[in-house]
Amino acid sequence: MAKYYSVNGKIILAKNAKVQVTDLGLIRGYGIFDFLKIEKGVPLFIEMHLERFEQSAKEMHLDLNYSIADLKKLVLKLIAKNDLKRAGLKIILTGGYSEDGYTPSKNTNLIMSLNPFKAPSKKAYQNGVKLFPHEFFREMAMVKTTNYLTPILLLKKTKEAGAVDILYHWDGKISESSRANFFIIKKDKTIVTSTSNVLKGVTRKRILELAKKHYKVLEKDITFRDLKNASEAFLSSTTKGALPVTQVGDLKIGNGKPGKISTHLNDLLKKEATTYRKKNK
Amino acid sequence: MAKYYSVNGKIILAKNAKVQVTDLGLIRGYGIFDFLKIEKGVPLFIEMHLERFEQSAKEMHLDLNYSIADLKKLVLKLIAKNDLKRAGLKIILTGGYSEDGYTPSKNTNLIMSLNPFKAPSKKAYQNGVKLFPHEFFREMAMVKTTNYLTPILLLKKTKEAGAVDILYHWDGKISESSRANFFIIKKDKTIVTSTSNVLKGVTRKRILELAKKHYKVLEKDITFRDLKNASEAFLSSTTKGALPVTQVGDLKIGNGKPGKISTHLNDLLKKEATTYRKKNK
Repeated sequence: MAKYYSVNGKIILAKNAKVQVTDLGLIRGYGIFDFLKIEKGVPLFIEMHLERFEQSAKEMHLDLNYSIADLKKLVLKLIAKNDLKRAGLKIILTGGYSEDGYTPSKNTNLIMSLNPFKAPSKKAYQNGVKLFPHEFFREMAMVKTTNYLTPILLLKKTKEAGAVDILYHWDGKISESSRANFFIIKKDKTIVTSTSNVLKGVTRKRILELAKKHYKVLEKDITFRDLKNASEAFLSSTTKGALPVTQVGDLKIGNGKPGKISTHLNDLLKKEATTYRKKNK
Repeated sequence: MAKYYSVNGKIILAKNAKVQVTDLGLIRGYGIFDFLKIEKGVPLFIEMHLERFEQSAKEMHLDLNYSIADLKKLVLKLIAKNDLKRAGLKIILTGGYSEDGYTPSKNTNLIMSLNPFKAPSKKAYQNGVKLFPHEFFREMAMVKTTNYLTPILLLKKTKEAGAVDILYHWDGKISESSRANFFIIKKDKTIVTSTSNVLKGVTRKRILELAKKHYKVLEKDITFRDLKNASEAFLSSTTKGALPVTQVGDLKIGNGKPGKISTHLNDLLKKEATTYRKKNK
């Protein structure tokens, strides 16, 4: 664990990083967050993450009392203070100490914490992973809220099914997994990712940009028939990059092995991250 | 504000009642709670609330490391320490400090806080209140989770509509408001309350028990047609008792005034509370 966290702009010992038990994020689940990877001391694609963080705050009518430039400075200061090379950084904004226990305060609480960055295993990329389908859609799916009730409740079931996560679907449309976006690759090599009830992930956005230089790319809802006909599927997130999905419930995707295009996209993501890191050292 | 709160069984100064910023209730919205009224120093219907609290914990696979008897003792100790006659008590249980930031810890966090008890105004009971219909159903509706994302996000819209709360409906069925159960009274005096996607409220349960001595009572889903044909409607909760609803969106309920049966039920609730209080002094 990192030695220092940050609460409301102040860098403090992690063990002293606390909020009052009346915080609206705790008592009413009213909060948003973002998560980014620190590699060799550089917070990767921090501008994209902070822009989305600002957007999430706006959507939830939460006052973010810091500019993106201020937040970036604070992140860099926190990384330097911890002298961390590789970590996951979580930035949380909650409704603060509400006067009536319900209405968000203007004095929202801003929390930054650092933890070991845990990527999926090599084996997961070599063999692909399984997802567990679940009929559900996230409330305010376009916002990165702190609400993970359903996937956490289903953790046991998910593990028992040999799956790494649940895959949400609603009204016959597949949207996303609990912590990643979902892509399929059609037999004609078109890359498709869902648009309804999804978070517009930073890695999703990067993939769409990178992929369109090599493939046809579509943002379009994915049905189970699309999934059945797909040659590949993968999850995208900051933690996972592009992680091949080889099974959804009982359905094997394509030939049941990680596909070439998924692997190609994961390589492109890695290269882009290295370029970003070198530029922003 | 009360001077003392309780965290994990210890009574401490409210200002020192804090959790680490890694608490799963804060970072993943994974928590449950219950809320009860303290009248003349007596926690009303505490047994029913603690039973439901225990049930909520079970449904969410959260370890409640206290028996109902222990919890009751702790509540009574906290009330005595604060020397409070009238207050609202909130009991929260969160997933604690998770090792991976996702899986609930066995060491869940138990928090008790006390706040002024704010009942609706006399005017609200005399004139009835308006609700703002919203197409939605709560995730894990049978559990009193801490997730209030949607109603808090819609606070401004609700107020602008002159409503006191939103009324959830899904698939043509009216379920509940964000913090209360919903009842209608049919022209033949039958009392009906919804069953799908609702929290089984303590006051709801009390009303069903009290009402059946005087009226026909049904637990059955309520449609908009039922609402249109109803002679009365009301909300039920610990804070509200039975609070007459005279308008839902543009629809006036019955003759647009609080009905006799709603008022009768509210009186029955008050009498029962007084009896309980005297018995448990």
